[in-house]
Amino acid sequence: MKKIVSVIGQSDSTEEQYSHAYELGRLLAQAGYAIVCGGMGGVMEAVARGAAESDGMCIGLLPGSDPESGNAYLTLAIPTGLGHVRNTLVVRAGEIVIAIGGGYGTLSEIAFALTMGKVVIGINTWSAESHASIPADVVRVGSATDAVRYIQQNLEGG
Amino acid sequence: MKKIVSVIGQSDSTEEQYSHAYELGRLLAQAGYAIVCGGMGGVMEAVARGAAESDGMCIGLLPGSDPESGNAYLTLAIPTGLGHVRNTLVVRAGEIVIAIGGGYGTLSEIAFALTMGKVVIGINTWSAESHASIPADVVRVGSATDAVRYIQQNLEGG
Amino acid sequence: MKKIVSVIGQSDSTEEQYSHAYELGRLLAQAGYAIVCGGMGGVMEAVARGAAESDGMCIGLLPGSDPESGNAYLTLAIPTGLGHVRNTLVVRAGEIVIAIGGGYGTLSEIAFALTMGKVVIGINTWSAESHASIPADVVRVGSATDAVRYIQQNLEGG
Amino acid sequence: MKKIVSVIGQSDSTEEQYSHAYELGRLLAQAGYAIVCGGMGGVMEAVARGAAESDGMCIGLLPGSDPESGNAYLTLAIPTGLGHVRNTLVVRAGEIVIAIGGGYGTLSEIAFALTMGKVVIGINTWSAESHASIPADVVRVGSATDAVRYIQQNLEGG
Repeated sequence: MKKIVSVIGQSDSTEEQYSHAYELGRLLAQAGYAIVCGGMGGVMEAVARGAAESDGMCIGLLPGSDPESGNAYLTLAIPTGLGHVRNTLVVRAGEIVIAIGGGYGTLSEIAFALTMGKVVIGINTWSAESHASIPADVVRVGSATDAVRYIQQNLEGG
Repeated sequence: MKKIVSVIGQSDSTEEQYSHAYELGRLLAQAGYAIVCGGMGGVMEAVARGAAESDGMCIGLLPGSDPESGNAYLTLAIPTGLGHVRNTLVVRAGEIVIAIGGGYGTLSEIAFALTMGKVVIGINTWSAESHASIPADVVRVGSATDAVRYIQQNLEGG
Repeated sequence: MKKIVSVIGQSDSTEEQYSHAYELGRLLAQAGYAIVCGGMGGVMEAVARGAAESDGMCIGLLPGSDPESGNAYLTLAIPTGLGHVRNTLVVRAGEIVIAIGGGYGTLSEIAFALTMGKVVIGINTWSAESHASIPADVVRVGSATDAVRYIQQNLEGG
Repeated sequence: MKKIVSVIGQSDSTEEQYSHAYELGRLLAQAGYAIVCGGMGGVMEAVARGAAESDGMCIGLLPGSDPESGNAYLTLAIPTGLGHVRNTLVVRAGEIVIAIGGGYGTLSEIAFALTMGKVVIGINTWSAESHASIPADVVRVGSATDAVRYIQQNLEGG
C-alpha cells in the first residue's frame, strides 16, 4: 500500500506557492508517495497537477458534495459534505503533512496535525502574517526538493 | 478522473457475500471504476482484493486513526478517526452505492444514501432479518455481474 | 447532570406525528429528561415546543451553520455545519432514542442507533412505507405516554 | 433562545487559566449567555463550574462516546464520538469564541474560528510558546471581565 503525504495550502495561492506545490507533486509522485489534499484550486490544484504529470496519485477530499467541484488533475475526488471540517480529514490522512503558505485555514490544519503528533513540514511560510502565526514546531524547508528529501530520510518506505 | 462506486457491507460476511464482493471488485475494476469502501474485513476486504487482482483502485476510509488497520488489498487506506460516522463518508463518496448483506451498519448506510438521493443496488440481501429492514427503493440484483451491468447502463462514463 | 433522550423524526411530519412529538416533549420535560433533536421543523419543532411549554430543555443540533435556522422553541440551537452527518450526532447524544415516523432520514438514524447498541423506541411508524423499513429491533409503542413509561422503567435516574 | 459563547482551552490548564475560566463562566451566566465547551477538565471544567454556580448553562461536546466522561459541572454532556474533530463543533457553536491558554489544540480551534469569520477573544495567552503561535487577529484582553464587557458591547442581545 502506498504511503500517504498530506499537502495543505490556500486556494488563493501566490505564483511562488503554486510552483512550490507543483514541484512537490512531481517529486512526491516520483518518490512513490500518494498525496491527499483538499481537492480545490491554488496549492491543491498545483500539487495534483504535478502528481498527475508524473503518473502519481492525488486524492482530493472535497468540502462539498459534488465531485465535479474538485480540480481537474485529481486522481479521485471524494466529496465529504463536511465543509471546513474536511480539513481535519486531509491532515489525518497523511503520515506526514506538508504546508505551503500561511492562511488561517492552513494554520488550523497545521495546529490540528500537531495535536495529532504528526510531523509538519512548512514551505514558503515566510510572509509577515504567517511568520507570526505558524507554530515553532513546524519543520521549515526552503523548497519542495528539501521537503521530499526530509520525508525520505524520516519516513521509511514509500 | 475515474468515477467512484461505493461498496458497503459487513466485516463479518458470509462466504456467499464475500464471493459476491470479490467478483464485484474484479468487475468494477475491469469496467474502469474506482471503489471506495470502509477498508476493513469481510465484504470490504473482498471487494478490495478483487479490485487489486484486476489492477483496479480501491480506497478504504477507515473508522480509526491507524492506516495499518485497513485490509491488505487497499490501494490506499485513509484513516478518518470518525468511528461509525465514517460510514456516511463512504456512502457520499460514490456516484452509486452497492450494498452486500444486511446488518444494521449496512442498513444505516443504505438509508443515508437514499436520503442523499443516490441510487443503491443491493446484492444478496435476502436473509430473513435484512429482508425485513432493507428499504423498498433499493435496486435488487442477484449477482455482481448484474450490478455492474446496471451501473454501466445507468451511469454514463466510467 | 440531566439524562438526554434523543428524539428523531421528519420535518415534513403528519398532524398525528406532530401531536405525538409535542406530547412527548411535554412528558419528557416533566420527567426531568433533556431532549436533543435535529432542531428543524415538524417532529423536531413539536418536541421542542412541548418541552418549552413544560419548562424543559431541548437542544437542536442543526445541519447548517446558522443558529437562526433552528425552530423557535429550542432552548439552544447548535449549528454543526455537517449537513446530513449531524443526524449521527443527534442519535449518539441520547442514552435512549425515540423515533417518530418513517422517512429514510429517520431510518438511517434508527439503524445508526442500533449499530451503537442504543435502545430505540418507535412511535407511529405504521405507514405502509415505514412498516416495511423500520428494523425489527425497534421497541414499538403506541403513544408518547407509553414511550416515557418505557424509558422510566428501563433508564434509571433522569 | 439564549445566545451561545464558545469557550476553548486546555485540559491541563494552569491555576491562572483555571481561575480566568471559572470567572468567565460566572460572568457569562450572569449576562444571560449559554456556554458551549469541550466538556473535559481544566479550562473546560472551570468555565462549566463558574456557570453552574451562577445558575447558568454550559453544554459540553465530548470527544468520546461516554457521557460520563464529561466534567461534573456541565448542564448537559453531549458525546460526539468524533475525537479531535469535535473541536470544530465547539467553535462553530458559538456566536463568539473565547480562548484561554495556548496549546496546539486551542490554536487549531482559534484558527478554525477565524476561517469561519468568527470573533475570537484571547485571555492569558502570553506564555512564550503561545505568544509565538496565537494569530494577530485575536482580540486580546486581560481578564474575564474585559472579555464579557467586549461581548456585551459587540454582540447585541444575550
